[in-house]
Amino acid sequence: MQTRREVEKWDIFELVLQGPSEGNPFRDVRLSAQFQYKNRIVKPDGFYDGNGTYRIRFMPDRAGVWRYVTRSSKPGLDGHAGEFVCVEPSPGNRGPVRVKDRYLFAYEDGTPFMPFGTTCYHWTHHGDERMEALTLQTLKESPFNKVRMCLLPTRDMQPPAFAFAGTCPGDADTTRFNPAFFAHLEKRIGDLRQLGIEADLILFHPYDKGHWGFDGMDEETDRFYLRYVIARLAAFRNVWWSLSNEYDFNKNKTVADWDRLLQYVQRCDPYQHLRSIHNGTKMYKTSTLYDYTKPWLTHQSIQHWDAELTTEWREQAAKPVVIDEISYEGNSSRRWGNISGEEFVHRCWEGMSRGGFVSHGESFIDRETRAWISAGGVLYGESPKRIAFLRSIMEAGPADWIEAAEKGAYRLLYFGRRQPVYRHVELPEDAVYRADIIDAWEMTVTPLDGTFTGRVKIGLPGKPYIALRLVRV
Amino acid sequence: MQTRREVEKWDIFELVLQGPSEGNPFRDVRLSAQFQYKNRIVKPDGFYDGNGTYRIRFMPDRAGVWRYVTRSSKPGLDGHAGEFVCVEPSPGNRGPVRVKDRYLFAYEDGTPFMPFGTTCYHWTHHGDERMEALTLQTLKESPFNKVRMCLLPTRDMQPPAFAFAGTCPGDADTTRFNPAFFAHLEKRIGDLRQLGIEADLILFHPYDKGHWGFDGMDEETDRFYLRYVIARLAAFRNVWWSLSNEYDFNKNKTVADWDRLLQYVQRCDPYQHLRSIHNGTKMYKTSTLYDYTKPWLTHQSIQHWDAELTTEWREQAAKPVVIDEISYEGNSSRRWGNISGEEFVHRCWEGMSRGGFVSHGESFIDRETRAWISAGGVLYGESPKRIAFLRSIMEAGPADWIEAAEKGAYRLLYFGRRQPVYRHVELPEDAVYRADIIDAWEMTVTPLDGTFTGRVKIGLPGKPYIALRLVRV
Repeated sequence: MQTRREVEKWDIFELVLQGPSEGNPFRDVRLSAQFQYKNRIVKPDGFYDGNGTYRIRFMPDRAGVWRYVTRSSKPGLDGHAGEFVCVEPSPGNRGPVRVKDRYLFAYEDGTPFMPFGTTCYHWTHHGDERMEALTLQTLKESPFNKVRMCLLPTRDMQPPAFAFAGTCPGDADTTRFNPAFFAHLEKRIGDLRQLGIEADLILFHPYDKGHWGFDGMDEETDRFYLRYVIARLAAFRNVWWSLSNEYDFNKNKTVADWDRLLQYVQRCDPYQHLRSIHNGTKMYKTSTLYDYTKPWLTHQSIQHWDAELTTEWREQAAKPVVIDEISYEGNSSRRWGNISGEEFVHRCWEGMSRGGFVSHGESFIDRETRAWISAGGVLYGESPKRIAFLRSIMEAGPADWIEAAEKGAYRLLYFGRRQPVYRHVELPEDAVYRADIIDAWEMTVTPLDGTFTGRVKIGLPGKPYIALRLVRV
Repeated sequence: MQTRREVEKWDIFELVLQGPSEGNPFRDVRLSAQFQYKNRIVKPDGFYDGNGTYRIRFMPDRAGVWRYVTRSSKPGLDGHAGEFVCVEPSPGNRGPVRVKDRYLFAYEDGTPFMPFGTTCYHWTHHGDERMEALTLQTLKESPFNKVRMCLLPTRDMQPPAFAFAGTCPGDADTTRFNPAFFAHLEKRIGDLRQLGIEADLILFHPYDKGHWGFDGMDEETDRFYLRYVIARLAAFRNVWWSLSNEYDFNKNKTVADWDRLLQYVQRCDPYQHLRSIHNGTKMYKTSTLYDYTKPWLTHQSIQHWDAELTTEWREQAAKPVVIDEISYEGNSSRRWGNISGEEFVHRCWEGMSRGGFVSHGESFIDRETRAWISAGGVLYGESPKRIAFLRSIMEAGPADWIEAAEKGAYRLLYFGRRQPVYRHVELPEDAVYRADIIDAWEMTVTPLDGTFTGRVKIGLPGKPYIALRLVRV
């Protein structure tokens, strides 16, 4: 008797089947499976992986015995049945990230997750193993726990492989996929998972401009692509879906198109990974942002330079605010990629102290490795270590620091470019607080002597980038 | 035969008459004069100066012989006739400042005037001659050529004298004025004139809160006050009228009230000094600003922290943009008074490079002299010398640097907190430019080698607070 296979909770159970390779199996063969644990049923799609190989991936979320049976339009792939044991997760495996308490995130096991994201759009696309290893090493040593990355190439790239079949823009065949491309991508998503880093996958982007044609496919092809991507990748617990980067720069699609595609992803994904869409437009008025109250969006993935608007965005849509682009630290000639480290760190503090999350990006264009945001490699900026410091401050505080402030348990007052020498603070008369002066740039925490109650005047150092932290004793 | 009196153009001709002192001459005696040069007639009001003395002040604006005759409700003051000779102005006397070319200012003699303002609200009110002398000395050594200053006291002040009769809030008599207060103020306005500094006089403000009652007088009393102020001060060529500071914080008055009072000032002032009103509200949307297109306003006197909006304000009202409050350099606990010198200088460059003027203010609260914005004294900040540098840069460039940019003669590109290592610039193919790198913070100008034509890539130092200046050879 064969030992039953064991898979830990939120890891991947993969079923491999052999089947037909003639014709176009990507398009012509339907395959799925029904996984059942007690009353719980999940039905992931399978996918064709080339050379007559078919796979069905499944991410179990309950410990215990799961039974499955396959369903297919091809008799040889249909009716395969079996079971496996889902065991408790090992340390570090906390499940996929979910929205929690409206404005926050937590892993499925309940552990709070604060995204400290970064962006490396095409770090997996250049066929440079050494550089990808370097990127992973850099990420490992960084404070970042989420990476925004694209599936599709830009017009300026000559990648060794891409999501669809073909070798160059002219012969891209959008009726077939390139299993080797996906296998490589999956290896990297797995590497990120190993490092505890979420992969915020950008499914479309407007940087094609008709070169590859992937930015202007018809809706049927878009869905064909999305379904394949979801079948392959959704079983990775660290996957987030970012339907498009700078969607409004893509003139081939309307907001209604994006809405339908987002709902399609919502329908296809058995695990309901986080879903959002990311704007490009330069906006003075926040009302021109995508309407993040739409129910198929789990969180707000914003591009805007003004972190002070975080407060407004929280009011507009009671969903987490993730400012995925706030300009990058760097020295590019472009506005989006050349703010100073000081300015970048300032924006991080401004956004977080208002209850949002600010993602990092770096674009130094004259250093040894290419710009981090496009190719990964090495980080040169002044902000990463200060983001690590900010992360340590935030993770040492309450999971919901805004609610804690409302309840009088905790306050983090950030003064930014202001440099007051004191601050009057109104504290409850019936509670006692200790206070720390935090220097966001120098990365120091200086406890103040004594404790504080009621209306108090607290001395401050009179320099920029200072925060005052009050914690109820 | 008596020698005719000589007064230089834009200086003050003053006629002194003796008349009745019984009753309330401030209210009961009407006095004016008609001054005539060829076909030009100007009719300034006179005013009662106490002790039976009446004065009529007149600022001639044409060289030549002016004749006058007085008109009064009192026979003894009526019908005094005479003449004087207006001679050409001495060096440094360029006349009052006027709006020129929509967005700019110039003295009446045509010399461009770029306001580099500062604020010392009550520097003349504290009865401290030593401090006033110190303020004048500081101003003399500063880059500032305009001072915002109030006529009326705040609720927290105990001034030795104020505009109206009386000694304390309880016995203020708004039917009479205090000539000694005005004589002192006029001395200081004269001192400023001597230094080439414009006095941007704030006629009302909301910091009274009913204490003195001057923020909630009836319209007749407001007009009585304004008419007296204009009769006394309008002949000073360096006077600007700022009808109110933070007008929207005064709950006793509506925008319609302010409109009527502004039109009253417009009617009473024979010289049409610059006129504006200054907002207080914290605004996200610029549409809540006072409507600066109203014809009785000569320029926009804005409070806002975002100098980037200068471009928008120019579009909204084709009048000069003067950001009279953009937050002050300092270390006050209040948001309006604690930005860093670096941030302040940055805002100045941002606003000016977009075609606006940014006024200075300083509010260090723990130094030897009190906060500059309220009491004058000494400046402690890091911004004044850098504003001097900015002024030298601007005054060395074209008077209308925005128009010059449109015509291809000059460009000043300011990169702020951005730190690009190069910039592509599109220059005409048929012209040759030289270029300078300007460091706004370090106050250096570094000429680049060679000349530039057409589309060029210009190397930049990759640090914040840099400007690139291009000048057609």
